[in-house]
Amino acid sequence: MNISADRVKELREWTGAGMMDCNKARTETGGDMDKAVDHLRKIGAAVAAKKEGRATKDGLVYAYIHPGGRLGVLVEVACETDFVARTADFQNFVKDIAMHIAASSPIAVRREDVPADVVEKEKEIFAAQAEASGKPPAVREKMVAGRVEKFFQEQVLLEQPFIRDPKLRVQDLVTAMVAKVGENIGVRRFARFGLGEG
Amino acid sequence: MNISADRVKELREWTGAGMMDCNKARTETGGDMDKAVDHLRKIGAAVAAKKEGRATKDGLVYAYIHPGGRLGVLVEVACETDFVARTADFQNFVKDIAMHIAASSPIAVRREDVPADVVEKEKEIFAAQAEASGKPPAVREKMVAGRVEKFFQEQVLLEQPFIRDPKLRVQDLVTAMVAKVGENIGVRRFARFGLGEG
Repeated sequence: MNISADRVKELREWTGAGMMDCNKARTETGGDMDKAVDHLRKIGAAVAAKKEGRATKDGLVYAYIHPGGRLGVLVEVACETDFVARTADFQNFVKDIAMHIAASSPIAVRREDVPADVVEKEKEIFAAQAEASGKPPAVREKMVAGRVEKFFQEQVLLEQPFIRDPKLRVQDLVTAMVAKVGENIGVRRFARFGLGEG
Repeated sequence: MNISADRVKELREWTGAGMMDCNKARTETGGDMDKAVDHLRKIGAAVAAKKEGRATKDGLVYAYIHPGGRLGVLVEVACETDFVARTADFQNFVKDIAMHIAASSPIAVRREDVPADVVEKEKEIFAAQAEASGKPPAVREKMVAGRVEKFFQEQVLLEQPFIRDPKLRVQDLVTAMVAKVGENIGVRRFARFGLGEG
């Protein structure tokens, strides 16, 4: 029960959900932590949906350099106003994103940003593997689709499990921050340089 | 004469040329600062040429974020050993390069890194301008070649005039650092994010 309370507190900090929402989530879900998390996520998502499409003209360009200077990340995260960009909440969020990119090495921000030839190459490999299985075509097709889905979830920033809490995807973090600061927020672009990897 | 001495000292710091070389350069060039600079540059270039092609497996990934967090640069600069990468000389050099990139916004490290379609587009614009001049074809051709050359010198990192001393190109700075630390050095890649410019 202590663990649950801590987790709810943690999530409350991320989602900015009120104490009442949190208590309600805990009561309604009978203390089931996963369900409570889902519930709070939905509250965040509902708030975030309302902010979608709003112009993000401000934000931060931030860099994380791993100690030793052999790995670095540059990231641009957009929000609507300078006011939010200067808050500690937003700045910590941007730092988390940069450190996540350093650790998890995504290949793009969104699925649609992955170059078509990269996706094609992966599909070919998966198709060859499926063919080797000797299963019927319909099954093989599903195998390939499943592997492509997994590839995106592992390689695309917003779909990756967040390093500091793998139960959340990075997109959940973005959604939570939108709900918390009340502005539309977007990870625009990043660069990740590992020494000698370029 | 004081100014000359200061300039030679400054160049001596950059090139790592010895006091004897500097005195010689000043005597031989009769105090003509430009010629002395050229002379010292040649000394540096001769040393650097010997290091060319040597493997650069070490180096630094460094970031410069402009105050306010609306502009950031990530750069990878390679050298041969960890020993050099950890020296203040190399680290200050890398900082200078990053700040130069922030200020001068190059589009690529080298000429050959500029995408072919970008060069083509520029050539078309220059050709149209030349045609509008009404000059004969041979002259127009030279006009276009001259403009393309200027385009590279303005847009390519290693050919740009160094912000802190426009008499030097960034390549001169690299050459000087090679001569100074005695290792091959190369600017591998950079990313420059201006808020909302992506």
